[in-house]
Amino acid sequence: MQFVYMFSEGNAAMRDVLGGKGANLAEMTQLGFPVPQGFTVSTAACNDYYKENKVISKSIQKEIFEKLARLEAVSNKQFGGTHNPLLVSVRSGARASMPGMMDTVLNLGLTDDVVEVMAQDDARTAFDSYRRLIQMYADVVKEIDKKYFDQELEFVLKETGIDSDHDLDLDALKGLVRRYKVIYEYHANEPFPQDPRVQLMEAIEAVFRSWNNPRAIYYRKMHDIPESWGTAVNIQEMVFGNKGEGCATGVAFSRNPASGEKMLYGEFLFNAQGEDVVAGTHTPLTIDQLEKTMPEAYQEFYDLSQKLEHHYRDMQDMEFTIEKGKLFMLQTRNGKRTAQAAVQIAYDMVEEGIITKQEAINQLDTQILEGLLHPQFDEKALSVADMIAKGLPASPGAASGAIVFDATTALKYFEKGTPCILVRLETSPEDIEGMHVSSGILTSRGGMTSHAAVVARGMGKSCIVGCSEVAVKENKTAIIKGKTYREGDLISIDGSTGFVYEGRIGTQPGLLSDEFKTLLTWADELATVKVYTNADTPKDAAKALEYGARGIGLIRTEHMFFEKNRIRAMREMILSQTTVQREKALEKLLPIQRQDFVDIFSVMKELPVTIRYLDPPLHEFMPTTTQEIEELASIMSMGVSDIKTVIRSLHEYNPMMGHRGCRLAISYPEIAMMQTRAIIEAALEVKKTEGYDVQPEIMIPLVGDVKEFNFLAMRIRELADKIINEHELSLNYRVGTMIELPRACVMADQIAKSVDFISFGTNDLTQMSFGFSRDDAGEFLRDYDRLGIITKDPFASLDTEGVGQLIELAYHKARSIKPDIKIGVCGEHGGDPRSIEFFKKLGFNYVSCSPFRVPIARICVAQTK
Amino acid sequence: MQFVYMFSEGNAAMRDVLGGKGANLAEMTQLGFPVPQGFTVSTAACNDYYKENKVISKSIQKEIFEKLARLEAVSNKQFGGTHNPLLVSVRSGARASMPGMMDTVLNLGLTDDVVEVMAQDDARTAFDSYRRLIQMYADVVKEIDKKYFDQELEFVLKETGIDSDHDLDLDALKGLVRRYKVIYEYHANEPFPQDPRVQLMEAIEAVFRSWNNPRAIYYRKMHDIPESWGTAVNIQEMVFGNKGEGCATGVAFSRNPASGEKMLYGEFLFNAQGEDVVAGTHTPLTIDQLEKTMPEAYQEFYDLSQKLEHHYRDMQDMEFTIEKGKLFMLQTRNGKRTAQAAVQIAYDMVEEGIITKQEAINQLDTQILEGLLHPQFDEKALSVADMIAKGLPASPGAASGAIVFDATTALKYFEKGTPCILVRLETSPEDIEGMHVSSGILTSRGGMTSHAAVVARGMGKSCIVGCSEVAVKENKTAIIKGKTYREGDLISIDGSTGFVYEGRIGTQPGLLSDEFKTLLTWADELATVKVYTNADTPKDAAKALEYGARGIGLIRTEHMFFEKNRIRAMREMILSQTTVQREKALEKLLPIQRQDFVDIFSVMKELPVTIRYLDPPLHEFMPTTTQEIEELASIMSMGVSDIKTVIRSLHEYNPMMGHRGCRLAISYPEIAMMQTRAIIEAALEVKKTEGYDVQPEIMIPLVGDVKEFNFLAMRIRELADKIINEHELSLNYRVGTMIELPRACVMADQIAKSVDFISFGTNDLTQMSFGFSRDDAGEFLRDYDRLGIITKDPFASLDTEGVGQLIELAYHKARSIKPDIKIGVCGEHGGDPRSIEFFKKLGFNYVSCSPFRVPIARICVAQTK
Repeated sequence: MQFVYMFSEGNAAMRDVLGGKGANLAEMTQLGFPVPQGFTVSTAACNDYYKENKVISKSIQKEIFEKLARLEAVSNKQFGGTHNPLLVSVRSGARASMPGMMDTVLNLGLTDDVVEVMAQDDARTAFDSYRRLIQMYADVVKEIDKKYFDQELEFVLKETGIDSDHDLDLDALKGLVRRYKVIYEYHANEPFPQDPRVQLMEAIEAVFRSWNNPRAIYYRKMHDIPESWGTAVNIQEMVFGNKGEGCATGVAFSRNPASGEKMLYGEFLFNAQGEDVVAGTHTPLTIDQLEKTMPEAYQEFYDLSQKLEHHYRDMQDMEFTIEKGKLFMLQTRNGKRTAQAAVQIAYDMVEEGIITKQEAINQLDTQILEGLLHPQFDEKALSVADMIAKGLPASPGAASGAIVFDATTALKYFEKGTPCILVRLETSPEDIEGMHVSSGILTSRGGMTSHAAVVARGMGKSCIVGCSEVAVKENKTAIIKGKTYREGDLISIDGSTGFVYEGRIGTQPGLLSDEFKTLLTWADELATVKVYTNADTPKDAAKALEYGARGIGLIRTEHMFFEKNRIRAMREMILSQTTVQREKALEKLLPIQRQDFVDIFSVMKELPVTIRYLDPPLHEFMPTTTQEIEELASIMSMGVSDIKTVIRSLHEYNPMMGHRGCRLAISYPEIAMMQTRAIIEAALEVKKTEGYDVQPEIMIPLVGDVKEFNFLAMRIRELADKIINEHELSLNYRVGTMIELPRACVMADQIAKSVDFISFGTNDLTQMSFGFSRDDAGEFLRDYDRLGIITKDPFASLDTEGVGQLIELAYHKARSIKPDIKIGVCGEHGGDPRSIEFFKKLGFNYVSCSPFRVPIARICVAQTK
Repeated sequence: MQFVYMFSEGNAAMRDVLGGKGANLAEMTQLGFPVPQGFTVSTAACNDYYKENKVISKSIQKEIFEKLARLEAVSNKQFGGTHNPLLVSVRSGARASMPGMMDTVLNLGLTDDVVEVMAQDDARTAFDSYRRLIQMYADVVKEIDKKYFDQELEFVLKETGIDSDHDLDLDALKGLVRRYKVIYEYHANEPFPQDPRVQLMEAIEAVFRSWNNPRAIYYRKMHDIPESWGTAVNIQEMVFGNKGEGCATGVAFSRNPASGEKMLYGEFLFNAQGEDVVAGTHTPLTIDQLEKTMPEAYQEFYDLSQKLEHHYRDMQDMEFTIEKGKLFMLQTRNGKRTAQAAVQIAYDMVEEGIITKQEAINQLDTQILEGLLHPQFDEKALSVADMIAKGLPASPGAASGAIVFDATTALKYFEKGTPCILVRLETSPEDIEGMHVSSGILTSRGGMTSHAAVVARGMGKSCIVGCSEVAVKENKTAIIKGKTYREGDLISIDGSTGFVYEGRIGTQPGLLSDEFKTLLTWADELATVKVYTNADTPKDAAKALEYGARGIGLIRTEHMFFEKNRIRAMREMILSQTTVQREKALEKLLPIQRQDFVDIFSVMKELPVTIRYLDPPLHEFMPTTTQEIEELASIMSMGVSDIKTVIRSLHEYNPMMGHRGCRLAISYPEIAMMQTRAIIEAALEVKKTEGYDVQPEIMIPLVGDVKEFNFLAMRIRELADKIINEHELSLNYRVGTMIELPRACVMADQIAKSVDFISFGTNDLTQMSFGFSRDDAGEFLRDYDRLGIITKDPFASLDTEGVGQLIELAYHKARSIKPDIKIGVCGEHGGDPRSIEFFKKLGFNYVSCSPFRVPIARICVAQTK
């Protein structure tokens, strides 16, 4: 088995083995691009390292040195050599891009001897490189805090009276190297290694180790990257952007990653090494300034960027270095982008004929796309808002919240349920968890490719960076325009404009761009799974239609009864002692419920409207305070104690597993009869007055046995047919069920015989399968998450491994009886991209989600990746 | 397709088609026994009748008349003929014996003309038969209440001054026929049919109809007889036990159905028809009196009974009629018997070499056998009890309760949870439901084969019949020895002795007879599934050992913490704020828990002892009353409000789905560590001091994901091994899990990789699969039962159809990973015969049940039927 590959041995398809960075370096090598050569230690070597109890095996070490020898031959340089010495960078590269998570060491191969050899050619670059090596090596390999070195640098800068480390002279740099070596030895308890091969092996091992540092683990968890993937390590010949005149280093996107505009978009620094750009410690220049100063290099880079975009069929994020006028490509990868840019780019690339519509849909990251639908500030509120600062619009979307100054505090606010904005000088990987739980991020330093910007875009979270008007102080305060802001003070930020406002500003849902609408149309053409919506009101239904829903998958009828003027009749119904009393109370509810359906049918016209019958336990409708009970008693002409007796009798030990769902309708069929009458009469009315052939789908919840369904369906169909006949009209209606109990899953074949359609209620199914209720599980799921037992919230994203097996079983059982039976899902998971993927693969006819999630779901169902 | 069979065309194997009665009549015909010939309309014809919307199809009618013609030929008589007329009986006969549930019509074929023809030969018999026909026909076909006819009979008896209808003279019988015809016409609105063929078809249809009368439906439900089986109808030439001298009719068992004693046991009446014997309206003679009066007929009957017993390899229940000295066999079937008799007969028949041990075990009806273990009266209490009457010991077992005089009241008492004794003149099929819910039955009339006796034995319920000292009055009172007893007054009855006592007498569990113990030993030899017990105390464990348990399948450790002196430490543990505090509280619990295990291990010696770790939510251990809370506060030196805060924080919306089971131990591993230490140290102590190689099996409850198990098992094994090493001893312990969540079922392959054994917790699994909690389901399960939606309590008997599928899935998944993994069940179902059948078929290694149910379970696991 081969563990180490020369760049010339690989290609883009070998991503699993070489990691993303390594595969792309190999691919660019194959394409004949100017890439400094090198080799990649594979992900398998990383796994081997962990398997061998954190030791790089002798045979892999041997392979590394063999490939090093080949690199020496290719470059005609010698690693640790006394003339023409080879320096290398060591960089991690996992299968999935993990920006800022893994570590890099540049200039490896420099020692006290080698630096002198290199200094013969270019002394300043040599010592500048050496001090960088010592600092990075100390950080990455020995975990010595960078601040010790930064303190020394500041001391030297102050001493020499110079502003930037880029301007230090040779003596200062030599002094810095001396100081750095002392600091290194003090903290590492050994001198800086003078054997380049030791440096190399230690650096490779450090990269392997960093695969399991807490930040990497957190990032993997957040992005569902399996630990087993491992990371590769790239060893590449150094080129130098820090050799003075004619030197530069930078990063650029082939299109604008924020807006999607077709233009080269990037930043660079003269006379610097790559880390200076991305670290956010120096404020870089925009790429157009490179065009002015080095037009040839710029043009070459531009041409290569276009070639790469066509080759990879996607927008590219590239790193380059110009050494004495010569361009080198150090990396390319599909670029991260904002939701807005993603839409623009996908749309444009189809229009430009670069990719197909299916490729455009597949290119969209639905997790990020949700940002598009994130709230925007309310226009009116915004017009009177107090704008207090402006930064770079790094990740769009509006957010309001309390200021917090560190990740720990952000977590505390999150746990209390208070939205917060994380305000930092700049962010670092340690902040990721805090960023994740904040509503927005605001930094006073850094550019559009700084850590904060990249990560926030990845999270689809509102972010403003480089907002220098915000002076973040050490004592947990920030001064903006002379005013001091403290933790807990409210601010609002707009990541699309870069504006920062004082106080909280109301928000409204985002609007869809024309390009996005076109993409959605393409998606609809490509998809076989339809997207319905969960909506309880005509307003929600209208919103969902606007977002492209093709039907309603779930109306929770009980929500219609909670309004003040309705709950009284509902309570009267519950307090009834006899069927006659109950029917009388239900008669009061009938016209109200019927009008609800008339309104919804009018909006939905001829699209399916799935109505779930009364589901929650009756006690939910009863008052809880003494005052409310007394009021109810007086209205009902009942004694307070009688009402309390009823409420007590409705008490259940485990209401989630109590008298609810179809069980209610079986005990009190008159409730289902009232709902049937309301639906059918409403449908006939809309058909008659508006001419729509409305499609009501009656859904019986919480069925565990087909007999429950049959008992109700028989009565429902009888009544419905009777009403339809009386009206001398025809009406297509269906009676189906929710499958939301484990028993219903294993009995799905029997159930399928009786029902017209099936909708999975994955929320209840998750509760019953795991045996924990959503309301109570928080307590121990926190422990589970901490201990790595259950790390994905199964209520947010379907537990495909466990609950999914039950769904699969039910699906196949149902289809084995009725191959064409309509099957969908109306639980929360119907709007979750990863869950939709599962339902789509099985062959569901539809997914149903909240109106707000409909557009994303439409993309999801069309993706074939 | 053939729908009607001559007796000579069938045999015992055709039970499904011919019903039990028809198949046995055919079999006796094949054996050459003296059986009046006839034919059977099959169960398929009954199903056809219902399929055709309650019409007997033309083709089946044709087949019936063809077979009738063949019967006429065989008997050389003519149905409705003017000389030598053929009379027939029409009797139902389903696949399963349903005593007293279906209806019979005798003497069919008599009309005003035919009776005169028959009268030429024997006028008294002719008119006696005719009046019987009219009454039975009116009852069965026209549903005219028998009481109208009984009133007339009483009137005639009074008028003529005669005691019994058997002694009425010809004129009186003729007069009775005239009166009966008038009553018939009055209630039926048409005259009594004078076409014998109309009588026949109407009677057959009435039998079909009666298959779905409420009593039949109730009986089927109680005995799990599917509606789809249908009933057959037997049409058989009449023979006459009512032809005066040399005539008799009776029923007899080949062995005593109450005690099992090997002796012909039965009752008969001179000059009567069969219905007189079983109806309990005449007090019959014992069969030994037949030996004296008709020794030849008796001897023939005795010989036939022995042949039948050998032929059917079981005790027989036979009906016979002697017409003018000639014996006819009218029916034979395997006899119902008391639990005590069942044991005795099974044992004796093996000893006599008639059947094998396996047949003996298979012969035992485990549902009835439970009666053996039913409570007996406490000896001491009995010695001072006031015996007030003595009747026939019809069905053994002691019972105490309030007197009720009708089935409806019995149901009311049952719903209140108050035990009651149903006291009746005699019982009838209308009383079955009331009998089912009573603790015991006492009748003042009827013999050992009366309705009450037969049904009570079938139910395994204590019953005394023919207790003439109890005078049951119409005004809901009974006078016993001059004292008036009213509804609600307490009495006690002993169905094994026939004694009735005043007041309530304490009871104690039944003892095992030597024969039963021998049968159990045979069962153990034959069974592959072991029977364990659920026991929380050394006392329970000892009891279970006595009953033959081969291990403990479930110790609920939490039960050990509820005792007064222990719950304090438990509460201290719960109120702990830190791990250190908690460990300190647990240290107090450790020696208590360790001693519990020492005691149990000492009892169980080298048998497996399965210990479930703490399972219930912690709030169950906290006080609820203000006083208790105040006490706790003072003990704990805490504020009352602080304790209330903790209690509130422990509140859960759905505790069944909350922080319990392994979730507790994951949040607080120190609890599991304390339990591990207690178990392992106790095991080592018993091993050291008593020398037993104890077998602790540690069971982690409520696992939904293998990671939960791994997290705990790793820590448990580490600590256990450490303690074992410190003691320098060896110890076999295992760590396994309960599968009681639907998700655990589908993940059982993964779980099997980690666990040493699996025990299904079918109670929780039933709750989660159905999505209803045992505590709350009562409310709607009553409705479900009434409506026929779920008629078997899934907590009493496993829902094999639904929950069973999940268990099967899990079983096969687990075995696919570890073919030899030990698999058992410790839910309530482990003691239920039908559920055990399921577990046995799957291949479980053990079932675990309460000590009291162990003997029955041992029989169940050995049965191969």
